[in-house]
Amino acid sequence: MAAHSPLSAKLAEEAGFDGIWASGFELSALYGMPDLSFVSMTQHLDMVRAMSGSAHLPIVADIDTGYGNAINVTHAIAEYERAGAAAVVIEDKTFPKVSSLASTGRQELVRIEEFQGKIAAALASRRDPNFVVIARTEALIAGLGEAEALRRAAAYEAAGADMILIHSKQKTPDEVESFVRAWSGDVPIVIVPTAYPEMNESRISALRKIRMVIYGNHAIRASVTAMKDIFTRIRRDGGIHTVNENIVSVEEIFRLQGMDRVKIVEKQFLR
Amino acid sequence: MAAHSPLSAKLAEEAGFDGIWASGFELSALYGMPDLSFVSMTQHLDMVRAMSGSAHLPIVADIDTGYGNAINVTHAIAEYERAGAAAVVIEDKTFPKVSSLASTGRQELVRIEEFQGKIAAALASRRDPNFVVIARTEALIAGLGEAEALRRAAAYEAAGADMILIHSKQKTPDEVESFVRAWSGDVPIVIVPTAYPEMNESRISALRKIRMVIYGNHAIRASVTAMKDIFTRIRRDGGIHTVNENIVSVEEIFRLQGMDRVKIVEKQFLR
Amino acid sequence: MAAHSPLSAKLAEEAGFDGIWASGFELSALYGMPDLSFVSMTQHLDMVRAMSGSAHLPIVADIDTGYGNAINVTHAIAEYERAGAAAVVIEDKTFPKVSSLASTGRQELVRIEEFQGKIAAALASRRDPNFVVIARTEALIAGLGEAEALRRAAAYEAAGADMILIHSKQKTPDEVESFVRAWSGDVPIVIVPTAYPEMNESRISALRKIRMVIYGNHAIRASVTAMKDIFTRIRRDGGIHTVNENIVSVEEIFRLQGMDRVKIVEKQFLR
Amino acid sequence: MAAHSPLSAKLAEEAGFDGIWASGFELSALYGMPDLSFVSMTQHLDMVRAMSGSAHLPIVADIDTGYGNAINVTHAIAEYERAGAAAVVIEDKTFPKVSSLASTGRQELVRIEEFQGKIAAALASRRDPNFVVIARTEALIAGLGEAEALRRAAAYEAAGADMILIHSKQKTPDEVESFVRAWSGDVPIVIVPTAYPEMNESRISALRKIRMVIYGNHAIRASVTAMKDIFTRIRRDGGIHTVNENIVSVEEIFRLQGMDRVKIVEKQFLR
Repeated sequence: MAAHSPLSAKLAEEAGFDGIWASGFELSALYGMPDLSFVSMTQHLDMVRAMSGSAHLPIVADIDTGYGNAINVTHAIAEYERAGAAAVVIEDKTFPKVSSLASTGRQELVRIEEFQGKIAAALASRRDPNFVVIARTEALIAGLGEAEALRRAAAYEAAGADMILIHSKQKTPDEVESFVRAWSGDVPIVIVPTAYPEMNESRISALRKIRMVIYGNHAIRASVTAMKDIFTRIRRDGGIHTVNENIVSVEEIFRLQGMDRVKIVEKQFLR
Repeated sequence: MAAHSPLSAKLAEEAGFDGIWASGFELSALYGMPDLSFVSMTQHLDMVRAMSGSAHLPIVADIDTGYGNAINVTHAIAEYERAGAAAVVIEDKTFPKVSSLASTGRQELVRIEEFQGKIAAALASRRDPNFVVIARTEALIAGLGEAEALRRAAAYEAAGADMILIHSKQKTPDEVESFVRAWSGDVPIVIVPTAYPEMNESRISALRKIRMVIYGNHAIRASVTAMKDIFTRIRRDGGIHTVNENIVSVEEIFRLQGMDRVKIVEKQFLR
Repeated sequence: MAAHSPLSAKLAEEAGFDGIWASGFELSALYGMPDLSFVSMTQHLDMVRAMSGSAHLPIVADIDTGYGNAINVTHAIAEYERAGAAAVVIEDKTFPKVSSLASTGRQELVRIEEFQGKIAAALASRRDPNFVVIARTEALIAGLGEAEALRRAAAYEAAGADMILIHSKQKTPDEVESFVRAWSGDVPIVIVPTAYPEMNESRISALRKIRMVIYGNHAIRASVTAMKDIFTRIRRDGGIHTVNENIVSVEEIFRLQGMDRVKIVEKQFLR
Repeated sequence: MAAHSPLSAKLAEEAGFDGIWASGFELSALYGMPDLSFVSMTQHLDMVRAMSGSAHLPIVADIDTGYGNAINVTHAIAEYERAGAAAVVIEDKTFPKVSSLASTGRQELVRIEEFQGKIAAALASRRDPNFVVIARTEALIAGLGEAEALRRAAAYEAAGADMILIHSKQKTPDEVESFVRAWSGDVPIVIVPTAYPEMNESRISALRKIRMVIYGNHAIRASVTAMKDIFTRIRRDGGIHTVNENIVSVEEIFRLQGMDRVKIVEKQFLR
């Protein structure tokens, strides 16, 4: 489950998810900024570090294109591993990102060899051999078709990627399901079914080759939904008297902040 | 309205609130940490700065006890003003905070003269004479009674405070209403009706001396409520197919991130 | 004069320099990292902000290629202006930087139109019309020759740049002097004579069109020189007894930290 | 050896020192601010983290009074250990610090039991049992005399402190030497001979009970000395032509930035 804060990471943990997606999109949204590298690696690392100090789930960090070329990737991997991430996803787009709304329409991918160099640099930089490097191809998004997507996925596996993330913006699962069925590699597949929510877990299991599903932006979308609703009602009703019963209590926030542990520590050490 | 991020600040602005409460409690909660000065001034300033770059409402910054003594207050005021805050609230507790659950039970206040020194230091440090310094007394919380609360409020006004925040944890508005009625000073009162939500805006208006009402933690409580609900449902239903209609769309997040402006800028400057 | 900290900025101010060069190279060196975008915009902004809160000289911020394309430039300009910079230098290299030692040898420049778009985006983003946008061309460094350097400088002036920085790695001033003599534009020239130190201020004045000279890395080089010397001597002599007289006193550091002002504030406000 | 940056830490490592003192005084000075808790834990942690990613020596972190009470100490220890520190020094002063120049003259110490609680909290919070907790007593500085200093040191050892730092501002080693001779505890002593530099390493060895010597501010004092000199000469001589030979070359800075490693990585992974 995507998270944009230690709080949302904790809630994902309590809900029973298996890992945290340290989403660049959610963090950008938290800062009210477009997901176009406005949020810096420092800001993202700070959040990964805070989450890893607060929740116990493995954190999969979204590092976009790796903050530059293969040299920058070596630096990024060292930093994300030190910050407590268990895995990174690195994608084969060019930097800087261009929104899909851009008049230039550029959604270019880097050359395969260049991206293989980035993957190899990532692998060579990790200290823990269990640190997972996931290669994400945007070939379908860029309109290059399934054959190119498969070719790239195979090349990235050959370069050492531990998993392949295949991304699609189609409104149905067809494109991704077709890719997964055609995939003959050994490493497992990761998907992000934001655009095709009907691709649920039973349907995913049936495909067998998918080992990880990322729910990419539901934490921030849920938060926005609730804040809009509660804010509007407080304004409309002229006070907090009508919403108080519809939101968690202050005591529930205390619980999430770990006040129980504080109470114990205070009893033990405050003299 | 309390905010813990530029996103929540923007939503408060869109809902029609008049200002942002840069809440230490909400930011601590976002970080999954107790509100006991675990979040540093640097982290809080970063958030105030991000909010002021993103929303257009005046920001009232919660600076707790001012991060030390009067010397530290002079530094804090300079930093918060530079970060874009329009006002600060500084309280008369001792540092460090002790949770009300602590076995020692200490909820001590600093001496009146010492706090007057802090207020005077704050006033002398602001560059913009319209920067507002709000003195918050915890006399009622500390169980010192209304007379002491009034004595402190008067002393803080005498030291130059622009407004007085009176805080209470009573479950009804009685204590605060009584204080407000008894208040004979010239500067207006600020309240935080978290514990007594029935003190709504029509009831507040009737008292006349209150110029600001802070809804201190409703942004984070709303967010937690929604994330708990959506996370639980995704786990229960094995996918995002059942919740998709109950949360705002990805396009709504794009809108809040300012993608419309990006589109215009790209058209104009990407060549 | 280049600075990598508020302390070095203050010393530059006391020495009588007219402005501070918030050098990316010096900050990278302070962090022990190569000057290849390992230091993030957040880290650089934090330093600019700290320097602007501490020294009184105008700060010229080195923003490399602007942290992405024209969209990212609009974000960067807003942030640097808010952080207290008086000017930025933006260069026409591609991102990511490649060290000049790289086997690929790529020192590519972006297309002229693309860089004009970045300049225009910068100008459109500044709030204060006196905020200065300096366009730096790396045409000579990239081996493209004087004609291309002049063509680019003219195009950047046409796009609105307030000044042109011409950079050279030649060991003598000839290349830069020739460029300056050939320059027929209206906006003034900025130079960085690191590689050709004999181009001193009297020689520069003679050329008339140069309005700014950046001493790009002398603060960090001086610091390293002294630390190496003092550290070696302490190790060699087995203690600090022999170096104590050769370094400034602790009282001099107190002075630079502003302890005199603290003393006054304590007397006035600590009660 | 004190360090205020990864660069100074690296130079200390190259000079042959055994560890890094992550000095709050040096970091405050780098920021041009008084050493009165103006630099936040976040800023200090960022520097510790950067140093631990850059140098290989153990880092001893100066955490002042622990950023609050025993609760805050538990948070601080977790953060410093995660940031890569090998040890912390925590002192028995009250918060906030008052400069010794203050008119109130307060240099108060916390009660012994309270500080024992802080030490116990620190010990209980470390994950690695080899993480070293050093208790620093300011009893001599506060004018409480040797007997009180010994009493406190013994109480701190009893609470579990791994080492005792005894601080003195006397201009001669007499006070500290007398303390060390009188010390009958089992844990070793740490000293900071800034004020009495003649207490060199041969004299320290003779006392036998001292296991660590901190040179507390020589990195920043050396840097300031050199910057003042070089800046003055550049202004006086109107250029950098006369100082160029007296400071390390740009290539030496490249070396400290690790450009050799970049060259290798580029050759291997840039495709």
